[in-house]
Amino acid sequence: MKIAIIGTGMVGQTLAAKMNSLGHPVMLGTRNVEAAVSRTDRDNFGNPGFGEWYKANGWAKLGTIADAVSFGELIINASQGASSVSTLQQANPGDFSGKVILDIANPLDFSRGMPPSLYPELSNTNSVGEEIQRTFPQAHVVKTLNTMNCGLMVNPASLGNGDHINFICGNDAGAKEKVKSLLKEFGWKEENIFDLGDISAARTTEALVPLWVRIMSVKQSVAFNFKIVE
Amino acid sequence: MKIAIIGTGMVGQTLAAKMNSLGHPVMLGTRNVEAAVSRTDRDNFGNPGFGEWYKANGWAKLGTIADAVSFGELIINASQGASSVSTLQQANPGDFSGKVILDIANPLDFSRGMPPSLYPELSNTNSVGEEIQRTFPQAHVVKTLNTMNCGLMVNPASLGNGDHINFICGNDAGAKEKVKSLLKEFGWKEENIFDLGDISAARTTEALVPLWVRIMSVKQSVAFNFKIVE
Repeated sequence: MKIAIIGTGMVGQTLAAKMNSLGHPVMLGTRNVEAAVSRTDRDNFGNPGFGEWYKANGWAKLGTIADAVSFGELIINASQGASSVSTLQQANPGDFSGKVILDIANPLDFSRGMPPSLYPELSNTNSVGEEIQRTFPQAHVVKTLNTMNCGLMVNPASLGNGDHINFICGNDAGAKEKVKSLLKEFGWKEENIFDLGDISAARTTEALVPLWVRIMSVKQSVAFNFKIVE
Repeated sequence: MKIAIIGTGMVGQTLAAKMNSLGHPVMLGTRNVEAAVSRTDRDNFGNPGFGEWYKANGWAKLGTIADAVSFGELIINASQGASSVSTLQQANPGDFSGKVILDIANPLDFSRGMPPSLYPELSNTNSVGEEIQRTFPQAHVVKTLNTMNCGLMVNPASLGNGDHINFICGNDAGAKEKVKSLLKEFGWKEENIFDLGDISAARTTEALVPLWVRIMSVKQSVAFNFKIVE
């Protein structure tokens, strides 16, 4: 299945590499292709800029947001949550029709430094996931994978035999099944994919991320995840 | 140790009974004693009013907020998060001096029904825990136990051999040790009490509760908790 990945940060890079290794053709989409390939500044977590990664991964296709959305049969939103909607609006609206948008973005506000808060207009009674669904009713938004480090997203078995939780939510049952099928290719077990219901549940998983960041700071590690004990 | 419990809801009742069973003298504090003993209306989760519980538990002392705070060597805030500060302000400020306030309250807004959101002024960049600490600098606020059902708070071993997480945070190390010691009386194991740092971390554990409510709705059960896998 052809995959569009919107966003060239660490999450986009990690998902692109995994999709490529699984045999899915991938195109990364960015607002400004020239700027992206020359980017060397590090992100909020100290990861290297896209330029270096792109040089090292010759298989990676790169295009504008419009190119990538047009290319992909499934679109992964790995852009910054605060601007995800305006980023996706760079594409041709018709190119979203009937497609699944797998949304991983969080509305993290680093403007006061670490730890981040959430943008008020995109949290509590709203979320990035809902805002995208509202803006693109022709697409099926599925929120998942946004509550963990990107290395773990694509390799759940690297931790505790893969027995930890990945939340999923969205309005369309068929779209959730498509995403679940991809998650299983990553190694996620059916019993560890927890369906919270419709896309409004995205507000609760996005709100988990500030707690995740605090735990990371205490542990000085990103190699952990939550599990539900019952 | 003499314990004041502020709030006569399900959480206050459960903690009072546990403290009593452990041999700690307990006084519950409420704004209006007469109203509390005649209360029969059910709470947001369908639990019976305080009046019935009070009749059935003859050992329970009941007083005003001022009475209870004066009585307690340690004060447990189990009042509604939205009004916790004004509730605690009913007491004599001097009666808080040097005491620990163990804060369990969450800023849940049920005004739109289920599931709840958080009061914006008490979340994201603020929290009930921080607001109480700011208002009562003469006390040491420790936030804990607020991310689970009250039955589990006082009986962690009832689930998964007690191996699930209870977050704790607060500015004073000595106060956190006092609270940990109480938690251990409840059955919490040292390794499952996760210290997130200062009281500002309360904003991240309070923000976990809307996710907890969604999970509860899917599972149709309150008998679960989170665990950290690493």
